[in-house]
Amino acid sequence: MELGKRIKAGDIRAASRLIRNIEDNVSEAKTTIKHIFPFTGNAHVIGITGSPGAGKSTLVDGLIEWHRKLDRTVGVLAVDPTSPFTGGAILGDRIRMQRHAEDPGVFVRSLATRGALGGLAKAVGDAIHVVDAMGKDVILVETVGTGQQEVEIINHAHTVIVVLVPGMGDEIQAIKAGIMEIADIFVVNKADREGSQKLHRELMTVLDMSKIPKDGWRPPILMIGNAFDPVEFDRGMTELTEKVKGHYDHLISTNQIGDRIRRKTRHELNEALRSCILEPVMKMLVTSGELDTMIDVLLKKESDPYTIAEDVAGRYLQDCIKP
Amino acid sequence: MELGKRIKAGDIRAASRLIRNIEDNVSEAKTTIKHIFPFTGNAHVIGITGSPGAGKSTLVDGLIEWHRKLDRTVGVLAVDPTSPFTGGAILGDRIRMQRHAEDPGVFVRSLATRGALGGLAKAVGDAIHVVDAMGKDVILVETVGTGQQEVEIINHAHTVIVVLVPGMGDEIQAIKAGIMEIADIFVVNKADREGSQKLHRELMTVLDMSKIPKDGWRPPILMIGNAFDPVEFDRGMTELTEKVKGHYDHLISTNQIGDRIRRKTRHELNEALRSCILEPVMKMLVTSGELDTMIDVLLKKESDPYTIAEDVAGRYLQDCIKP
Repeated sequence: MELGKRIKAGDIRAASRLIRNIEDNVSEAKTTIKHIFPFTGNAHVIGITGSPGAGKSTLVDGLIEWHRKLDRTVGVLAVDPTSPFTGGAILGDRIRMQRHAEDPGVFVRSLATRGALGGLAKAVGDAIHVVDAMGKDVILVETVGTGQQEVEIINHAHTVIVVLVPGMGDEIQAIKAGIMEIADIFVVNKADREGSQKLHRELMTVLDMSKIPKDGWRPPILMIGNAFDPVEFDRGMTELTEKVKGHYDHLISTNQIGDRIRRKTRHELNEALRSCILEPVMKMLVTSGELDTMIDVLLKKESDPYTIAEDVAGRYLQDCIKP
Repeated sequence: MELGKRIKAGDIRAASRLIRNIEDNVSEAKTTIKHIFPFTGNAHVIGITGSPGAGKSTLVDGLIEWHRKLDRTVGVLAVDPTSPFTGGAILGDRIRMQRHAEDPGVFVRSLATRGALGGLAKAVGDAIHVVDAMGKDVILVETVGTGQQEVEIINHAHTVIVVLVPGMGDEIQAIKAGIMEIADIFVVNKADREGSQKLHRELMTVLDMSKIPKDGWRPPILMIGNAFDPVEFDRGMTELTEKVKGHYDHLISTNQIGDRIRRKTRHELNEALRSCILEPVMKMLVTSGELDTMIDVLLKKESDPYTIAEDVAGRYLQDCIKP
């Protein structure tokens, strides 16, 4: 309770500690999440996703700056192993990030996965709650965006920015295949590079072929050039921030925000159910050493995984629910 | 049982049907997996992972050809949405793949995820079993390799090939952050491009800094040039296939193969436990409409996800295991 109150008061150390406990899957973290949950749901959550090297962090940095100018507080969660926020950065990026370190209106944390069973998905949702309960107006979530898991950003964010760079010949293929469906805004970054016009054209074509729903939002495609040219970069960031605001206004005016929040909530409940139902069973099997015995049986082909799992379900699930 | 026998006899339609059922999470699929399980564990499973556009499919194609020349049968599972095998291909790639379509010694299937809860991880493992039970000597699994989920290829493959291309400035960052740990062999693909020597040097540096375990395998770094230059491509493929064989021989001679198989089996058991314990509970909540009611409660902030999930656990788990 104490920790929850401190987080609500914006205490950075308390929030960092809770996020660390979430990452480490410490069971007390759940208790604190319960306490802060009523104070969540107020922030605008913006996902920024794209390949490693697409320049996502530069855009995150620009978005921080823009929101701070408007006196909005900002939380940043970096789920990208290549993000400067997480330490996998080249020196220049790191230095750029430093300037927010002293600003009490900016809270930055990186997230890593521990443990196998979909740990990250749960950690991201809970960490967003922490930053949300701290009262931050905007939460920026930076993820790597090619895998299936990263497409899950749609389960957490109200607005998803997909960042692409020219030069990867068949990047467009990836777009067709999944990222297309999650993008609210496209950024063609490093647009001074060769191939940016081609990438823009291809995106336009794919968008032209896509069905735009009634009351729909056609994802705009922004071209943002060299981050080292301040005038050009400012122009790009101004356009981006306008579109981000435009998308949020659109969600509210069409009441689509309700659908997004519902999807977020459902996803979160799924994760909590896994944590409260599957995890205790796994824990018991591991601590009793039974899991190792089961693996030995499987290695000898004396049984198969489903027969063993059904037997475990038979022992630990109530009769009404047995498979 | 019938279906299992047909799969064991190498029946392509039976295998395709089972894989489709696995993807769709049809419950009868489990029964068939149980039947074929004793006939699995014989194939050499090779993972090929890398960013979209890294040219993984070209290497897969080369590996198919090489194994066929040695009269080995090959199964291919493409988990990559950008793979030519899955339909997200540019025309040239698709045509190249066609030539294997008529060869009865080659079985190719793509895998897609349906449903949220880590469906792909389970589907990949089960699909590998299907191809394994068909008696294929080698199974090539192509995945996109930047996200956490894709790093899971290590849970399925005996040998993991990580494919990189020069030109993405901080690709090396991604390597440091996870892919490094899973690679048995590195391929710098499209090595005729600018920056390939730099990428090679950076990889060497990272490898030099890494601890190589006793009886260890230092991942070789292969440079493979333009796929449209047949002589150069053949040279590269010959080197790659030698290293793949070399790695497998190393696993066997050092008995590390046992550890890998144990890890695979453990992972698989985890997935089966999820399927038999968490899924029945989820299904009951969905079909009874209770899940929707719970979401409404959460939206009104009248409760929180963990309190609800613990309540569900209290109802459906036996007392001995309640959280």
